[in-house]
Amino acid sequence: MIRSDGRRPDQLRPVNIVLDYIKYAEGSCLIEFGDTKVICTASVEEKVPPFLRGTGQGWITAEYSMLPRATVQRTVREAAKGKLTGRTQEIQRLIGRSLRSAVDLSRLGEITLWIDCDVIQADGGTRTASVTGAFVALYRALQRIDKLEAVNLFVAAVSVGIVDGVLLLDLNYEEDSKAEVDMNVVMNERGEFAEIQGTGEGRTFTRSELDNLLELASKGIGKLIQKQKEVLEVGS
Amino acid sequence: MIRSDGRRPDQLRPVNIVLDYIKYAEGSCLIEFGDTKVICTASVEEKVPPFLRGTGQGWITAEYSMLPRATVQRTVREAAKGKLTGRTQEIQRLIGRSLRSAVDLSRLGEITLWIDCDVIQADGGTRTASVTGAFVALYRALQRIDKLEAVNLFVAAVSVGIVDGVLLLDLNYEEDSKAEVDMNVVMNERGEFAEIQGTGEGRTFTRSELDNLLELASKGIGKLIQKQKEVLEVGS
Amino acid sequence: MIRSDGRRPDQLRPVNIVLDYIKYAEGSCLIEFGDTKVICTASVEEKVPPFLRGTGQGWITAEYSMLPRATVQRTVREAAKGKLTGRTQEIQRLIGRSLRSAVDLSRLGEITLWIDCDVIQADGGTRTASVTGAFVALYRALQRIDKLEAVNLFVAAVSVGIVDGVLLLDLNYEEDSKAEVDMNVVMNERGEFAEIQGTGEGRTFTRSELDNLLELASKGIGKLIQKQKEVLEVGS
Amino acid sequence: MIRSDGRRPDQLRPVNIVLDYIKYAEGSCLIEFGDTKVICTASVEEKVPPFLRGTGQGWITAEYSMLPRATVQRTVREAAKGKLTGRTQEIQRLIGRSLRSAVDLSRLGEITLWIDCDVIQADGGTRTASVTGAFVALYRALQRIDKLEAVNLFVAAVSVGIVDGVLLLDLNYEEDSKAEVDMNVVMNERGEFAEIQGTGEGRTFTRSELDNLLELASKGIGKLIQKQKEVLEVGS
Amino acid sequence: MIRSDGRRPDQLRPVNIVLDYIKYAEGSCLIEFGDTKVICTASVEEKVPPFLRGTGQGWITAEYSMLPRATVQRTVREAAKGKLTGRTQEIQRLIGRSLRSAVDLSRLGEITLWIDCDVIQADGGTRTASVTGAFVALYRALQRIDKLEAVNLFVAAVSVGIVDGVLLLDLNYEEDSKAEVDMNVVMNERGEFAEIQGTGEGRTFTRSELDNLLELASKGIGKLIQKQKEVLEVGS
Amino acid sequence: MIRSDGRRPDQLRPVNIVLDYIKYAEGSCLIEFGDTKVICTASVEEKVPPFLRGTGQGWITAEYSMLPRATVQRTVREAAKGKLTGRTQEIQRLIGRSLRSAVDLSRLGEITLWIDCDVIQADGGTRTASVTGAFVALYRALQRIDKLEAVNLFVAAVSVGIVDGVLLLDLNYEEDSKAEVDMNVVMNERGEFAEIQGTGEGRTFTRSELDNLLELASKGIGKLIQKQKEVLEVGS
Repeated sequence: MIRSDGRRPDQLRPVNIVLDYIKYAEGSCLIEFGDTKVICTASVEEKVPPFLRGTGQGWITAEYSMLPRATVQRTVREAAKGKLTGRTQEIQRLIGRSLRSAVDLSRLGEITLWIDCDVIQADGGTRTASVTGAFVALYRALQRIDKLEAVNLFVAAVSVGIVDGVLLLDLNYEEDSKAEVDMNVVMNERGEFAEIQGTGEGRTFTRSELDNLLELASKGIGKLIQKQKEVLEVGS
Repeated sequence: MIRSDGRRPDQLRPVNIVLDYIKYAEGSCLIEFGDTKVICTASVEEKVPPFLRGTGQGWITAEYSMLPRATVQRTVREAAKGKLTGRTQEIQRLIGRSLRSAVDLSRLGEITLWIDCDVIQADGGTRTASVTGAFVALYRALQRIDKLEAVNLFVAAVSVGIVDGVLLLDLNYEEDSKAEVDMNVVMNERGEFAEIQGTGEGRTFTRSELDNLLELASKGIGKLIQKQKEVLEVGS
Repeated sequence: MIRSDGRRPDQLRPVNIVLDYIKYAEGSCLIEFGDTKVICTASVEEKVPPFLRGTGQGWITAEYSMLPRATVQRTVREAAKGKLTGRTQEIQRLIGRSLRSAVDLSRLGEITLWIDCDVIQADGGTRTASVTGAFVALYRALQRIDKLEAVNLFVAAVSVGIVDGVLLLDLNYEEDSKAEVDMNVVMNERGEFAEIQGTGEGRTFTRSELDNLLELASKGIGKLIQKQKEVLEVGS
Repeated sequence: MIRSDGRRPDQLRPVNIVLDYIKYAEGSCLIEFGDTKVICTASVEEKVPPFLRGTGQGWITAEYSMLPRATVQRTVREAAKGKLTGRTQEIQRLIGRSLRSAVDLSRLGEITLWIDCDVIQADGGTRTASVTGAFVALYRALQRIDKLEAVNLFVAAVSVGIVDGVLLLDLNYEEDSKAEVDMNVVMNERGEFAEIQGTGEGRTFTRSELDNLLELASKGIGKLIQKQKEVLEVGS
Repeated sequence: MIRSDGRRPDQLRPVNIVLDYIKYAEGSCLIEFGDTKVICTASVEEKVPPFLRGTGQGWITAEYSMLPRATVQRTVREAAKGKLTGRTQEIQRLIGRSLRSAVDLSRLGEITLWIDCDVIQADGGTRTASVTGAFVALYRALQRIDKLEAVNLFVAAVSVGIVDGVLLLDLNYEEDSKAEVDMNVVMNERGEFAEIQGTGEGRTFTRSELDNLLELASKGIGKLIQKQKEVLEVGS
Repeated sequence: MIRSDGRRPDQLRPVNIVLDYIKYAEGSCLIEFGDTKVICTASVEEKVPPFLRGTGQGWITAEYSMLPRATVQRTVREAAKGKLTGRTQEIQRLIGRSLRSAVDLSRLGEITLWIDCDVIQADGGTRTASVTGAFVALYRALQRIDKLEAVNLFVAAVSVGIVDGVLLLDLNYEEDSKAEVDMNVVMNERGEFAEIQGTGEGRTFTRSELDNLLELASKGIGKLIQKQKEVLEVGS
């Protein structure tokens, strides 16, 4: 089977990462998964949330947003509505947890890393592109402040799903909106899971489908981590 | 290994369901997973959200909350803060999706089922108790309005996790707060997944750990569905 | 005249109080006035609001809420609306003032007692059941922290009203919604008033009607205080 | 006993009412109870809230606010805080109910009267001055739109209380802040009650104290209604 | 050309200023530009915003609001909506900047002057009347706390505009709503600008029109400052 | 005098406009004034606000925001705070008015053009870059829907100011934060003003300074409009 954009089922979209995209941020990049484009920045703040004060430990927290016309139809700004949607909050929490799984917080010292992922164009996979780009921004910021020893392992994320009965890697918007099963997987460079979120949309999925989806995700994440390392000039 | 409350690692807490707990609701129950207690109601509204008007299809949506002193320390009411936390929104969306996976919305007609899960005492597993109890309330309400034909299969949920290296079923609060890996699984009576949400807390997890956790969850959910059927007097 | 539920005009509904209903709270009960059911908890916090710091005096504050399906029609959650209604705020303030009238705050030391009244089923009289149950939870919490000497006198509340020209004690929802005059009375065990709130709904009321309503309330409150004492095992 | 401003215990402060104070409003006045000054307007809107549509009946609703520097210390604007305090909501509801008790809503036709009471200087008794002035604005607006036949009886309000053991009429701010018992009474020109709200502040009050307070209120309200009639040029 | 209210194009409306209008405020006035009436108060607070702490410098901040029935049609309260409109925020910022331009903040010491402008009747020019009245209230407050040496120069504001091709000074509501060009000018007593805000409404304006409008504004402001000085009994 | 970035006082920063930057929007560009970068989109909606329904006339409205790390210090998201700052609202209104001055709304038909300006990097002049880029996005969108006849004249904006006594064109962040006088000017291609907003920061400005600043702005805007026309391939 060939997908509408010509990819094979197990093929990622072209991935592009522009490092140091925002001049003020300690770490930043523009990441593109095909037509999905996200600006990721990492900002260093010299304090921690109350629950960590005096522990010598640091923190990583993430925020996520979309420009109103990142989408096919313009969406109303959350600032105009005065509150965050549930979807936004879910994604913010996912990004934060994923990055914290990759870092030894006790080696950060009492600083907070604010990760901002702002989607400027959305064509599916914005949360997985965000995790993948956010790791790059985070790595870069830690490099700047000379704390790379706190990074355990590279982390990246990809979506997999079932569309018309076929298992696909890295769904674009059109595929995502038809998906019967939708799964986001965050893994590290050793092939271990930081997060699995799988959802049946209108149907359930079997154990065997799950196994095959995880296999597909694993391959995609391997390639994404390779890309991260190239951009950051880190040897595998 | 014996757990602090005397259970085996693969053992559920005592499950208790009081049907028709709230007199006004079309469907309701009080569900208890050990000391975790949740009031679940299903309310029928004779209209649907705008995106479904004129389609002949129905909708199921869920809300979740905790009484302030359901927890060891009193928590501030979301109504007093004026907004929902990200955690609350994540749980609400999980409950809604789980129930929609169990029902053929096109056979509901244009009605909305409002599911309310209010935790009156919280000892871990409030979201899985909520899904399990919400299904009972939903089933009961559909029975009342004579639409049971819309129900596909029974659905229930349970948590599994890894604590001190041991895989456990149905974590209580004490276990949950120490868990290295935390996973919520929603399955139907055929053993298919409606939802998997697995998260490493401070560490990642391997493929083999994932397999064993899913095995454990599967057994627990089988027993929960049996309990739901007893209470609703449905033959297996 | 016999009321729709078979009571005489001057008769309370069956009152039931389950002490220690919530395991984490310092004090708690489930109180039932007929089909009206309220969970009341008292939580002890080791600090006071700014205006009392350094005075050696304590504080009592109350919050009130209803589960969405406590009512005949489901009501929208205040947390979802992002603000409290005027009705909720009025009731919260009434509960707080009533309890403070029963306690010598200067003998509490610098602690705050947070009272939470959550209505799980509403059939009229939720605010008077809340005051009456909240006093029980408060008493229990003070017993736990060994500060019973701060309690002056028992306090309870009841509603009275005029329906179709007849004076009634402890109105249920059906009666309440038809009431021409509606009054909530909070009294202590010496028969003194802590609070009177009387309102004509679409008509005014005369001085003589007022006198008779207060007489009726006084009798009902006497019985409620007797019930409180039984449950708390306090001699009259 | 002579009060700090030279009044006898049963004496009102000087009352002044400037009719038609705001040129755009259908009805308006500036009312002064001593140094307490409130602008009251009544605005006519040619529609009713949803629950009255098609009934032929009208509605009266009230809003209340204080300028930030109406008080001894500047208070933060509710618009700046983004929400109304409980006190404001209680007062708004009291004003609305009081005026509705004075009017036959079924003779209004489907219109809403919006009553706005804005306190420009506060020296105690702002809610009772508001009720008294709001009635004048309401009467004036109904006169303008030729619907005076909907008015049943004149209504006014006054505060009474116990300060240092002495029963006082129409408390100013200094007295109010020391009051042991505080009561607001709304009555019509026949001496019937529309509303009684009595509260012990730090102590309870006896039946006999209640009787004397109501007596005092009754006299004061008689004088206020006389003043309303003079200003509106209505014969007694 | 004669305007609808009989004025010449270059004529102000009658200006009236009642000094010390609110008894609690350190400085206050009621200012009237024709039928536009604004209560302005200046309140002294003995602290400064965080960014000024420890600098020895003071601050001036302003808030602006309208009573709901200040306008021809009743407008919804911002407190009821829970947020400030953009217009309100623009005006607040304009008033604050204008006053700060008139005062040497470093000679205030670490205090904040809260300026409140509350429009009780609006007939055009509410923001310019607010600036002009706010200066009076501010001056008065500084006189009270013996800090007049911090005042550099008197400041006042006026609107100018083009209506039906004619350049007008001090537009009333009717003129303002037809204006093709609308400009607010804040000047000091030396004829220097503190602020110019000019806007074409549906058309642009030429350089020569701009010059003539500024000329007109300059004359009007001269007269307003003369009036301020009379009221404050300051010699020119 | 040479500026810190090597420019002459009357010199713009390098201006760059990438047309069609966002694939979904009817019109879009990325505009750069030096290091200030703004994504501008124009979205077409087939309806108008209530006050225009049935008039045959269209509407243009604008929203403005900054990414959190567009600035030297990370700023808190307005969506997280739940409300827009006054600054944001002022800028939104300015952009909207400026564009409406350039378009004959009656020739649009009943559509709304939503303009979104999202600053991804901020180095001063974000509002003038937004107006200039927004006009390009708007023009492009009208071209797409074949309504170019509604455009009257090209419009652009630039900032001017006085820094250390020197008059400067197109201030960067460093200059802006030191500016004694700060002015934003919106002009059309005939040299007429759509908007002038001039503010003294800590000092006032004379008539002659104003004249020189307007002269400077005029030259800058001429060049910006030339750039707009090149990008849109419109002959001068």
